[in-house]
Amino acid sequence: MNRNPHVAVVGATGAVGVEMIKTLEKRNFPVGKLTLLASARSAGKKLKFRGETISVQELTKNSFNGIDVALFSAGGSISKEFAPLAARSNCVVVDNSSAFRMDDTVPLVVPEINAADVKHHSGIIANPNCTTAITLMALYPLHQAFGVTRIFASSYQAVSGTGAKAIEELERQVNEIVSGKPVTKEVYPHQIAFNVLPHVDSFLPDGYTKEEMKMQNEGRKIMHHPNFRASVTCVRVPVYRAHSVAVSAEFENPISVEAAREVLKKAPGLDVIDDPANKAYPLPLHTAEVYNCAVGRIRKDCAMDNGLCFWVSGDQLLKGAALNAVQIAEELVRSN
Amino acid sequence: MNRNPHVAVVGATGAVGVEMIKTLEKRNFPVGKLTLLASARSAGKKLKFRGETISVQELTKNSFNGIDVALFSAGGSISKEFAPLAARSNCVVVDNSSAFRMDDTVPLVVPEINAADVKHHSGIIANPNCTTAITLMALYPLHQAFGVTRIFASSYQAVSGTGAKAIEELERQVNEIVSGKPVTKEVYPHQIAFNVLPHVDSFLPDGYTKEEMKMQNEGRKIMHHPNFRASVTCVRVPVYRAHSVAVSAEFENPISVEAAREVLKKAPGLDVIDDPANKAYPLPLHTAEVYNCAVGRIRKDCAMDNGLCFWVSGDQLLKGAALNAVQIAEELVRSN
Repeated sequence: MNRNPHVAVVGATGAVGVEMIKTLEKRNFPVGKLTLLASARSAGKKLKFRGETISVQELTKNSFNGIDVALFSAGGSISKEFAPLAARSNCVVVDNSSAFRMDDTVPLVVPEINAADVKHHSGIIANPNCTTAITLMALYPLHQAFGVTRIFASSYQAVSGTGAKAIEELERQVNEIVSGKPVTKEVYPHQIAFNVLPHVDSFLPDGYTKEEMKMQNEGRKIMHHPNFRASVTCVRVPVYRAHSVAVSAEFENPISVEAAREVLKKAPGLDVIDDPANKAYPLPLHTAEVYNCAVGRIRKDCAMDNGLCFWVSGDQLLKGAALNAVQIAEELVRSN
Repeated sequence: MNRNPHVAVVGATGAVGVEMIKTLEKRNFPVGKLTLLASARSAGKKLKFRGETISVQELTKNSFNGIDVALFSAGGSISKEFAPLAARSNCVVVDNSSAFRMDDTVPLVVPEINAADVKHHSGIIANPNCTTAITLMALYPLHQAFGVTRIFASSYQAVSGTGAKAIEELERQVNEIVSGKPVTKEVYPHQIAFNVLPHVDSFLPDGYTKEEMKMQNEGRKIMHHPNFRASVTCVRVPVYRAHSVAVSAEFENPISVEAAREVLKKAPGLDVIDDPANKAYPLPLHTAEVYNCAVGRIRKDCAMDNGLCFWVSGDQLLKGAALNAVQIAEELVRSN
């Protein structure tokens, strides 16, 4: 890969695309040139990058000529159609959709965990599910030290995980309620303001949602741990930004709170915020727009041997999407 | 007990007290006379009962002369001071605080589960923790059929569980945010609007909160199941009314979704709302002001043998407090 690659952002005007552009700038990614791509509807919009104004171009089959690396966040169907085309043009795709995550020929990478997998790509590298990535930022260091067998987890997922329209929906519903108007729904099947929805992504025949099973499926692949089991309930909450996850984790080896805390303090990309006496624990409101994930509420699980409970929050637009994608691109440049 | 007892509501002007009065009326409880008691600050306030206006009186040592049954919801310290006094005046206390719940001489009752325990009172009967009561409404019938060993659970608790001031706090913070003003905090240590707080009740030395351990401690007593284990994370969410709980439950005996659903459909005080294809599952917004709890998202737990996941919602001011207290009082009248 070119040391100053020509980068494309596909889905540049979306909630994640905008964060990708900001993250490339903030982390001084060695962008040689930046091309912004989106649907015909968004073409012509202007976005800023390093003080320069860049026009968004319509995504077409020929968009990838001369592009070195393309960060995709435009939904699964766009990825399925355009990522293989891009890869055939010698562009490396970092894809934020779920389209290729479980494909054996596609690495699925959280750089703090399995950066070395980046090398084995065939043109496409997948960015993991946001809730999975955030949970693994705390779980994987514990796994290395104590050997995780399974987890039971429940999520508290922000509306921005659904996209910019869901942010607008929560704002609109709150305004409707405050001004005594009827509540309107466009994005979610039920009112999200002052409510919680035990429904993220679509349902599978066994009653889990796709989102819920990503933790086990993607977790196995990222951690190289084929026997990892995860039973998860994913819930949308009226928070604008940053997901949180309550985790009960079982380990092969004995684990103490002290030993776990030492491991977590040394973990890259993770802050330990765990001082109940001073009412300090991770909060989505404080984790929003922060690169690092935060872990707290660390305690021995009272319902299993070798068990630990913890609570992790992370900005799902950053570590759960844009930041992780840019970190993968950084690995690509570094591994030249 | 008198067939038309003289009833007192202690803490009559609080969020739960108001619901107790409404519930006594709606369920046609055979109230002979109703006395409303509260702190000096609230004395003189007028409340309606069966079309009649009743003045709130100041709670004193002599308030319980001639009272047959007193429903207490004025906090633990008021209960500790006045419930034994009331009991000595031959008044039976149904106490909504946590003050006496784990006292061996005090029955802790969810009438659908252990109504018979009401008989063994010595003047005080305890009403359980709201999150525990709501969870057990679905868990206990499954326990009877399959023998629960342990659960892993996470809660999504409404602000009204904290009281009327917390409802005002969420409303005020939302208005402050909508109108671009700084957010003020009085009740919770952190902003609750558009945030979630993994902190309900005070912290214990082992890192759990008191609220989290109530599920195991009270669950054991109510279900007569001393080996029941429960690892819980309790989280406050910006919902006005009705708690929800995501549960992974392990059983001694094999359990299928079909068999579990049959058991739950027959369970008293519980509605099964479980039709993912039609986006039907329990929602706090729909469970608010409803007597029955609702269970859904029923599925085999993918991380344990003999495991079942479910999601239960219930109005914590009703089944979690006022309704359950009135149901206990109904048992007292019935057991004459």
